[in-house]
Amino acid sequence: MKIYCAKDSLITGVNTVQKAVSNKNTLPVLQGIMIKAEGQSLIFEATDLEIGIRCVVPAQVEKEGVVVLPSRLFSDLVRKLPDVLIELELQNDVINIHYNESDLSLRGYDPEEFPLLPDLFDAETFNLPVSIFKTMIKQTIFACSAEESRPVFTGCLLQIEDGNLRLIATDTHRLAYRIAEISNPEQIKFQGIIPAKTLGEIYRLLRDEDEHLFIRFNQAQIVFQFGAVHLLSRLIEGQFPNYKQVIPQSCQTKVLLSAKLFQDSVERASLLARDGSHTSIIKLSVDTERLSIDQTSELGKISEQMEVKKEGNDVKIAFNSKFLLDVLKIIDSEEIVFELSGSYSPGIIRPVDDPNYLYLALPVRTS
Amino acid sequence: MKIYCAKDSLITGVNTVQKAVSNKNTLPVLQGIMIKAEGQSLIFEATDLEIGIRCVVPAQVEKEGVVVLPSRLFSDLVRKLPDVLIELELQNDVINIHYNESDLSLRGYDPEEFPLLPDLFDAETFNLPVSIFKTMIKQTIFACSAEESRPVFTGCLLQIEDGNLRLIATDTHRLAYRIAEISNPEQIKFQGIIPAKTLGEIYRLLRDEDEHLFIRFNQAQIVFQFGAVHLLSRLIEGQFPNYKQVIPQSCQTKVLLSAKLFQDSVERASLLARDGSHTSIIKLSVDTERLSIDQTSELGKISEQMEVKKEGNDVKIAFNSKFLLDVLKIIDSEEIVFELSGSYSPGIIRPVDDPNYLYLALPVRTS
Repeated sequence: MKIYCAKDSLITGVNTVQKAVSNKNTLPVLQGIMIKAEGQSLIFEATDLEIGIRCVVPAQVEKEGVVVLPSRLFSDLVRKLPDVLIELELQNDVINIHYNESDLSLRGYDPEEFPLLPDLFDAETFNLPVSIFKTMIKQTIFACSAEESRPVFTGCLLQIEDGNLRLIATDTHRLAYRIAEISNPEQIKFQGIIPAKTLGEIYRLLRDEDEHLFIRFNQAQIVFQFGAVHLLSRLIEGQFPNYKQVIPQSCQTKVLLSAKLFQDSVERASLLARDGSHTSIIKLSVDTERLSIDQTSELGKISEQMEVKKEGNDVKIAFNSKFLLDVLKIIDSEEIVFELSGSYSPGIIRPVDDPNYLYLALPVRTS
Repeated sequence: MKIYCAKDSLITGVNTVQKAVSNKNTLPVLQGIMIKAEGQSLIFEATDLEIGIRCVVPAQVEKEGVVVLPSRLFSDLVRKLPDVLIELELQNDVINIHYNESDLSLRGYDPEEFPLLPDLFDAETFNLPVSIFKTMIKQTIFACSAEESRPVFTGCLLQIEDGNLRLIATDTHRLAYRIAEISNPEQIKFQGIIPAKTLGEIYRLLRDEDEHLFIRFNQAQIVFQFGAVHLLSRLIEGQFPNYKQVIPQSCQTKVLLSAKLFQDSVERASLLARDGSHTSIIKLSVDTERLSIDQTSELGKISEQMEVKKEGNDVKIAFNSKFLLDVLKIIDSEEIVFELSGSYSPGIIRPVDDPNYLYLALPVRTS
């Protein structure tokens, strides 16, 4: 292997795949990044056996070949290289990095031990605009659970049916649901639970200029491809709950209010409510044209008053403040509709100008 | 106490004094910020008995008075307030914060328990441009020691003599020295060791638009005043080492080189040299027109080559990489002069275009 390439290409390759490098010490070679010189490209790959990321960057290849370099050291070094043409040459299992008149050699791992990212031969493919999928991730991923003991809740359900793509997440206390229309001429059907970590990585790597996101899948794995990046992930096994059953079809109270003002009020109230513990409970009360949050704690007392538009019954209800703030932070529209049905039924938050999104949170019973 | 003021004024007051709030639980009132309404101002004060900070912001005072509020909660709340005129009113030991139609009340500490920041009645005063003192702090503070067991090394020596102000720091392995000419018509003399924490706070708070920094001092304390801020600090007791004795008056080798290229080379070499331990030793070798760093570790091998201009003897010498990188990061000039006298004498780094700065580092003996 002998290649020449720009420092920036090395940085792109390393930064893209680095998050897939394993943190565990079980298989040392997984702490490495595989770099393969082929054709007119360098192919970077890393995997922790749950996620695999591949990134292709341009290079001038004089001799093809493959190395696996220690991820952390190599990426630290690459960032510190001068902004000149860099030469990489493999000599007797040692990679020599040459820049200006200086040289640096690193011992790598045995490339034979590096697991191949499987190709999905029997896979179906479809594509959608990158910008839509980025929004879908942002608006659902936060509702995933972090508890590894119940795996199905640690990912988002991706569902393709007719001309619709849905992404749904729930931790059993709340649920975020986003639907998008897509072109699906081949009537592809898919249903699978994608780990939140995978979606987080895709969100980090997606650039709006990539335009199209291609998704290929089989029963156990899914590949996301955009720009020069392939991201392969296992799917989570298990049965995702029937979300349609959970979402109420009607409500007794509809409150129209400003997302930003509501967020600010809940944030202030939650500072006062925290009282030592990590969860703070926010008690809302809606009557006529007003939403109030009144609470008292050891720290002090707060009385927040907001003007709102209300249809239907007056209501008093309490929520974990985190369940409100998480969704208020990611809603893009200025106004939201908050649908309630008494103190013990779930509350539903919808952006006023976007029928494709819905968020549901269970209330907290307060005595 | 009853006042009206802008949210931004509250944020300025809180942000300025907050770093002086005590983290320790010994005296609960020290976890508070004192706010005093007086004349047309709100005066914010906090102190941990080592440093005290006072900041004055404009306010419309209807009734004078004083409160001490829990620092963390109050500053979190202030940041979340809406951008409207805020009313603070003290009623029966409780401060009531009113904004829009909402109310928030906090219980404070007893203001009687809050220590007064002493005024320095017998103090002498002089002033210098803010921009100069900011540079002086940046170029010396990093050479202070963090070891509390030897207090004199945890601060910078501030020395005023004739028309000169000097700031000097050393941890006994290296020394940073900065001198500035000041106007000193009253022939003020001063010598005192200022805690690094104090200087760090001043650096954080100094704004270039403040223009003048006023310094007042007596034997035990020093006050820095700039813009609306007073910062009072104790001086560190003890005898600062005689730095003049340490600085060699001549050298056997003078190397002229690029600060940036040298920094990059040392950074790359130190990545390879780290080898498990936290210190990495950088071995330099200068001959004719070349400075080389050659080293081998378990991780690999590096050979860095830089073109330099050299006067005097060839030399081989080794330094702790941190001692080189710390100074290379804060030197503003493109080229530096590195003065050496064999492998066992200290190395001196000077910016090529600034005779007012000097940095000295002891070499490491390598076998």
